[in-house]
Amino acid sequence: MTETPTAGLESLLDGYAYRAWRTADEDAGPVRFALIGLGWWTTDQVLPALEDAALSEATVLVSGSAEKAERIAADWESVERAVTYDEFHAGEAADAYDAIYVCTPNAYHLEYAETAADLGKAVLCEKPMEATVERAARMVEACEDADVPLMVGYRMQTDPLVRHARELIRAGAIGEPVHALGNNSQTLLDIIPNPDQWRLDPDLTGYGTSVMDLGIYPLNTTRFLLDADPVRARAAMDSRHEAFDEVPDERSAFTVTLDDGTLLTATASQNAHGATSLRIVGTDGELLFEPAFHMETALRIRRGDDEVTVEPDQANQMTELFDYFADRLLADADVGADGRHGLLDIEAIRAVHEAAETGSAVDVGR
Amino acid sequence: MTETPTAGLESLLDGYAYRAWRTADEDAGPVRFALIGLGWWTTDQVLPALEDAALSEATVLVSGSAEKAERIAADWESVERAVTYDEFHAGEAADAYDAIYVCTPNAYHLEYAETAADLGKAVLCEKPMEATVERAARMVEACEDADVPLMVGYRMQTDPLVRHARELIRAGAIGEPVHALGNNSQTLLDIIPNPDQWRLDPDLTGYGTSVMDLGIYPLNTTRFLLDADPVRARAAMDSRHEAFDEVPDERSAFTVTLDDGTLLTATASQNAHGATSLRIVGTDGELLFEPAFHMETALRIRRGDDEVTVEPDQANQMTELFDYFADRLLADADVGADGRHGLLDIEAIRAVHEAAETGSAVDVGR
Repeated sequence: MTETPTAGLESLLDGYAYRAWRTADEDAGPVRFALIGLGWWTTDQVLPALEDAALSEATVLVSGSAEKAERIAADWESVERAVTYDEFHAGEAADAYDAIYVCTPNAYHLEYAETAADLGKAVLCEKPMEATVERAARMVEACEDADVPLMVGYRMQTDPLVRHARELIRAGAIGEPVHALGNNSQTLLDIIPNPDQWRLDPDLTGYGTSVMDLGIYPLNTTRFLLDADPVRARAAMDSRHEAFDEVPDERSAFTVTLDDGTLLTATASQNAHGATSLRIVGTDGELLFEPAFHMETALRIRRGDDEVTVEPDQANQMTELFDYFADRLLADADVGADGRHGLLDIEAIRAVHEAAETGSAVDVGR
Repeated sequence: MTETPTAGLESLLDGYAYRAWRTADEDAGPVRFALIGLGWWTTDQVLPALEDAALSEATVLVSGSAEKAERIAADWESVERAVTYDEFHAGEAADAYDAIYVCTPNAYHLEYAETAADLGKAVLCEKPMEATVERAARMVEACEDADVPLMVGYRMQTDPLVRHARELIRAGAIGEPVHALGNNSQTLLDIIPNPDQWRLDPDLTGYGTSVMDLGIYPLNTTRFLLDADPVRARAAMDSRHEAFDEVPDERSAFTVTLDDGTLLTATASQNAHGATSLRIVGTDGELLFEPAFHMETALRIRRGDDEVTVEPDQANQMTELFDYFADRLLADADVGADGRHGLLDIEAIRAVHEAAETGSAVDVGR
């Protein structure tokens, strides 16, 4: 960790404890995962991250194409089986995994979670949880009814630096939180140069694209840092580029009141220069993550005239996410970002969209 | 100037021209100012700033207390006369100044501007222009009817670094602007430890305190940088500390749509750790001022993977403001931040307050 403390703030760096959540026995695990949806995130980020994981491994790959699943499976030693979506739903290879990781277009998350619940498998579901509040609620119900653990893949919540910052805030490092200010933008059409992609299709993405896909980061990370929940939303959004004709929020800005009184404001765009930050301003100091959300984080804390910057050796956020969830399963412990936690984000996002559409402030979850 | 360019962005530093606005003849001036209101800003910031000014000087001090005005006048060589508010309104010492600078509580600005208009004197009025839209409009009218120049004291608009950034944006350095994100907070009760101060009295401050006094900085600076005007506002605000019982916005967050489609979001608080920043995210890059608003500015520009930080020798923002206005007067040229420009900010601030109160998006100037 690189630390550049100013006099007076050194104490903020005490107590940085890597994986303080670790609960399961030393020799427990690993938890075996079926990875559902073999897009670039799964192949380029998740599979390599699981190679370095201590408590989790990828044993099954699930894709629409048997050929694609087989081809990718051949590259990874831990992977035992490659099956199609239909085969997965039919219970194929169920002996070869303990939990599933869902990384498909938003509107397909539910069906895989439902099958997993039927099979008694735990569910780690990418965020946003589903395309709509109704479908997210059905996922919660299915997993609760089957008594299988459900966690939403908020990798910021298991990032060691974010967890450290949360402890600092709890210990009063910036006084009482007053404002949260975040931004998250990317040029989606440069990353995936296809105007017909699912993030621009309302049937697959849900309420929209920039809030669902990007605004959810400052929203959920602030919830986690402050242990506070959204209660009311105001928003503006706009789509201008023709590729965004079917979604309302090529760009968006929203203000969400949290239940501790903090005013959270964030901007998100799927068609702007890639930029991320999250700033929490309190009565006695401020905390700034920049970069904030995309597999890389740095933290600056200011209090009075003092400042400290924390740039730890970057932990792989996906390794941390999977191992945290695996640890919870192995220890039979509750997960932080469970289904009801994720559902509230979808309710907040629906409120943001309704607020933008109607021009009125909208209560979350009403 | 300290410059740390990454390859590819050096060209952004070309063309940094200090006082490119200079129009008046070399030997013109100085313009003689009567300073109205001798609070800490005038005594600690403005009088020293005018000692270093090339085109402007303080010749008259105006205060409620003759004794106070005389006492302070004795400390400054350029000052010829010290008069009371009543004497000012009666035209005392009118031969000793060419223009007035108004730095009283917001709701008193109008009366000094009206007297100046009657006397044929130019007006430099601190922001926010007045307590209400109606009073700000009366100021515009009074000055237009008397044909005296009126400028609102937006010192960010004459900060050399802000003007340079504006040229860069115009030249396409960050592509098309998409988002503006600003924050401005201070602990008012530490700065002025008196709960009965005018910024907390609705009769003197106007619509409120954090938006009028602090939120106006990201609002107006973004307008200037992007050459864009506010059209629609959404907002949330809250007062919790008892000193803020009479004003609605101890803390505030607002989103304003600009007429170029940019979504501007900002937070402001009069009861939080002092923090300022302004970020403009465009299609090709982003620009960050931090610190942003309080007599000190630094600028970071990012485009692709390149980054440049510009930290010029800090010009005194009040010297720049007065000399710019003096130059305009001496050259008989239009001012940028004129009365109608300032009035639009007050209309936007009224819309922000109405949006927070009603829970509805409100059109600016409707």
